[in-house]
Amino acid sequence: MLKVTIWNEFRHEVQDAEVREVYPKGIHGALADGLAPYGFDLRTATLDEPEHGLTEEVLNSTDVLLWWGHLAHGEVSDEIVNRVHQRVLDGMGLIVLHSGHCAKIFAKLMGTNTCALKWREADETERLWVINPAHPIAAGIGEYIELEREEMYGEHFNIPAPDELVFISWFEGGEVFRSGVTYHRGRGKIFYFRPGHETYPTYYNEQIVRVIANGVNWAAPSDTARPVYGHAQPLQEIRGKVTAL
Amino acid sequence: MLKVTIWNEFRHEVQDAEVREVYPKGIHGALADGLAPYGFDLRTATLDEPEHGLTEEVLNSTDVLLWWGHLAHGEVSDEIVNRVHQRVLDGMGLIVLHSGHCAKIFAKLMGTNTCALKWREADETERLWVINPAHPIAAGIGEYIELEREEMYGEHFNIPAPDELVFISWFEGGEVFRSGVTYHRGRGKIFYFRPGHETYPTYYNEQIVRVIANGVNWAAPSDTARPVYGHAQPLQEIRGKVTAL
Amino acid sequence: MLKVTIWNEFRHEVQDAEVREVYPKGIHGALADGLAPYGFDLRTATLDEPEHGLTEEVLNSTDVLLWWGHLAHGEVSDEIVNRVHQRVLDGMGLIVLHSGHCAKIFAKLMGTNTCALKWREADETERLWVINPAHPIAAGIGEYIELEREEMYGEHFNIPAPDELVFISWFEGGEVFRSGVTYHRGRGKIFYFRPGHETYPTYYNEQIVRVIANGVNWAAPSDTARPVYGHAQPLQEIRGKVTAL
Amino acid sequence: MLKVTIWNEFRHEVQDAEVREVYPKGIHGALADGLAPYGFDLRTATLDEPEHGLTEEVLNSTDVLLWWGHLAHGEVSDEIVNRVHQRVLDGMGLIVLHSGHCAKIFAKLMGTNTCALKWREADETERLWVINPAHPIAAGIGEYIELEREEMYGEHFNIPAPDELVFISWFEGGEVFRSGVTYHRGRGKIFYFRPGHETYPTYYNEQIVRVIANGVNWAAPSDTARPVYGHAQPLQEIRGKVTAL
Repeated sequence: MLKVTIWNEFRHEVQDAEVREVYPKGIHGALADGLAPYGFDLRTATLDEPEHGLTEEVLNSTDVLLWWGHLAHGEVSDEIVNRVHQRVLDGMGLIVLHSGHCAKIFAKLMGTNTCALKWREADETERLWVINPAHPIAAGIGEYIELEREEMYGEHFNIPAPDELVFISWFEGGEVFRSGVTYHRGRGKIFYFRPGHETYPTYYNEQIVRVIANGVNWAAPSDTARPVYGHAQPLQEIRGKVTAL
Repeated sequence: MLKVTIWNEFRHEVQDAEVREVYPKGIHGALADGLAPYGFDLRTATLDEPEHGLTEEVLNSTDVLLWWGHLAHGEVSDEIVNRVHQRVLDGMGLIVLHSGHCAKIFAKLMGTNTCALKWREADETERLWVINPAHPIAAGIGEYIELEREEMYGEHFNIPAPDELVFISWFEGGEVFRSGVTYHRGRGKIFYFRPGHETYPTYYNEQIVRVIANGVNWAAPSDTARPVYGHAQPLQEIRGKVTAL
Repeated sequence: MLKVTIWNEFRHEVQDAEVREVYPKGIHGALADGLAPYGFDLRTATLDEPEHGLTEEVLNSTDVLLWWGHLAHGEVSDEIVNRVHQRVLDGMGLIVLHSGHCAKIFAKLMGTNTCALKWREADETERLWVINPAHPIAAGIGEYIELEREEMYGEHFNIPAPDELVFISWFEGGEVFRSGVTYHRGRGKIFYFRPGHETYPTYYNEQIVRVIANGVNWAAPSDTARPVYGHAQPLQEIRGKVTAL
Repeated sequence: MLKVTIWNEFRHEVQDAEVREVYPKGIHGALADGLAPYGFDLRTATLDEPEHGLTEEVLNSTDVLLWWGHLAHGEVSDEIVNRVHQRVLDGMGLIVLHSGHCAKIFAKLMGTNTCALKWREADETERLWVINPAHPIAAGIGEYIELEREEMYGEHFNIPAPDELVFISWFEGGEVFRSGVTYHRGRGKIFYFRPGHETYPTYYNEQIVRVIANGVNWAAPSDTARPVYGHAQPLQEIRGKVTAL
């Protein structure tokens, strides 16, 4: 059973009645409810808990971490960011949601850390088209997911060329966006998934939840060997072999 | 001076007055006029010429080949397709335009050969967003190119994941499309560029022509070594060296 | 339970006593024995069976197809190649082994179809290094797999840039090779894995078998939607929506 | 004329007589001499100059920056690293050489920042095989470059999957390495090239210098538009259009 930790900044829901109405249990709570049927071992963590809820113990027992943040990226301590970063390189999966594109951890893993894209809040329709119909992250949904109202995110999105491009979004107002992209960093897999503005009920959409569940399964650690770095063994053994030919 | 051959099926312009009005000199003629200021050594070739205008002599003296076809893909002889294929693998650049996605040569190079995408003729606005602002193919144009009316091409586009994704198109009716994509095959470079339906004056648009000119420069052969294939030299030399250590 | 069909040309083992000694049950038999513990529903098929053992019925009930061929690529009928090609585009996984790099089906899917690489039979040691330690295909093995004796395959290997590079081989005589590469074509996933010359007991190596089993799991069809191609639905619905804004 | 700044840590050559003998003018001096025939506007800069020689003025007039460092990565100030980072995102090319894989700027751009690979100093032969014979970085050299003696760098090399893989190295002792890799970050192009240990005369090798010169040309800024980030323009214009359909 995959161990999944859902991290949420959890500030909008506390500070803003409109958001609280949409997500009374917090975005983390809505995601936990939505993912419950998928058979994961689910936990949540939030910014204002000690160590942001991401202690060594929690992270070491997390297979896949979900990340939603927006208002308070700067309040996430560098120590915790470095801890998460190290865990990703060591194999923990990471799913970054929506405005998490601006989170320190995402910037650090991407190398562009400019948090740069276009945006607009105008109740626009979004269509997330499946670009790679062979990819397990697109399992169980149709050709596209349509969200009647969402915040617009538009290109250019200042990310490295993704290892795999799974979704491209269309927005009513004239923009496109690489909405589902995957990366590998060290032994870890990363999936960025765009939708989920705090004022819309996006995380109650079953197709959106299905994609996130697929992402968890895809990003789960593989039982691969840890690479050995540093000074390498002497050559004698292989040299002896070659000489003997 | 790069030697560029513009290949056009040249049937619409002959058969259809509406198209002829838009492209009185043929699509190849319009492209030749548009590319003239860029300092290429330009030639044209069309389907109904002997060997479709693509003799060994022509191809062997072509650095970059442009390809526009639509009505008569099936009339292109397999012999010529194989000849072009071989030239691409040997280093000739290839720029495939619009409905050329269905050409035998493109299918053969992609490996998907299903000519599969969505389409609609409805005078829709297209916006081609620059996804890779470091790429020389995007030089000299703005953040996006807007075409007031074009045919819609929509995902899923059944191509392999491109080596580089340069443009994504947005269409008014709700679709997106990977409109500018690059590939390498052997020693050859390939650029597919979407716009250019025969009933629209797209190839008179200076930004579109600029992208095609950029594509020619990008796809031009590099002076790289021809790989040597087949049975490889014996090991003695390297073995002797290793033994001596 | 994944349905796996192991296709083998099965000529070397019949014609050549040396190979028969290594693979008395055929390469397909050795692979079937090796893969037995992994819980797949296994079947084999060979060139000289009717329709090469790859009837519509067999292919339609195959989740992942393994392919080993060498002497008789030309005897594989184009009709069967097209049938396999279509099934891959529709979602069947394909694992191409060793000299299968020259098979019609691999050439057709790659778009380079030149069957081009370097080779040498000289009992050389091969080391397959894991390049992507996050990839599930590398699960359960160490940093590299060492094969004491194998045929050498060397670069340049005339394939498209892979979607993912999992293994690079080192050979004693001075060559390297992209030995484990993945591709997506349509809804299908493809894994090419280099080792397995017919005169070496490579397919009895437990690590090699583990990689092939991993490959089967990775290449298994995802339950994704079939893209709809062709003329797209009229715009009314979306237009109505936009107009109403 | 491309403006190229060659940055060298310049400590080994000062502190170590053996290195000074190989590079009496410093590694930067050797590279400047080697690149002189290629028609670049060349400058050098070193760690112990004010602002490490990388003032705003210098960087703003640099098209492509070369980077060699080893002993003193930690002494490079974060302010200068951030400045270089910003310039790369804004379009300056960056060529990172050899042990520069451990430089702060490379780590920051890659997102893995673990400086992780295998290494060994044992006078081993290295062969850099051309993997992409269509790539302009491989122009003018043969199928491979052979260096009689070099330091070994081995996989796993903890970098993101490169946008393009141009060279793979073979080492006598049994290792392989992705020796020539390219990336895009924002508007900037990055080329990492492995060879160049300070105790070997690698940067006098004409083929190595040719590759670096090719890298400079490839990484030169393209005249592309600066993406506009942040809140996007209102929808009225496009809405009006759509409504009118």
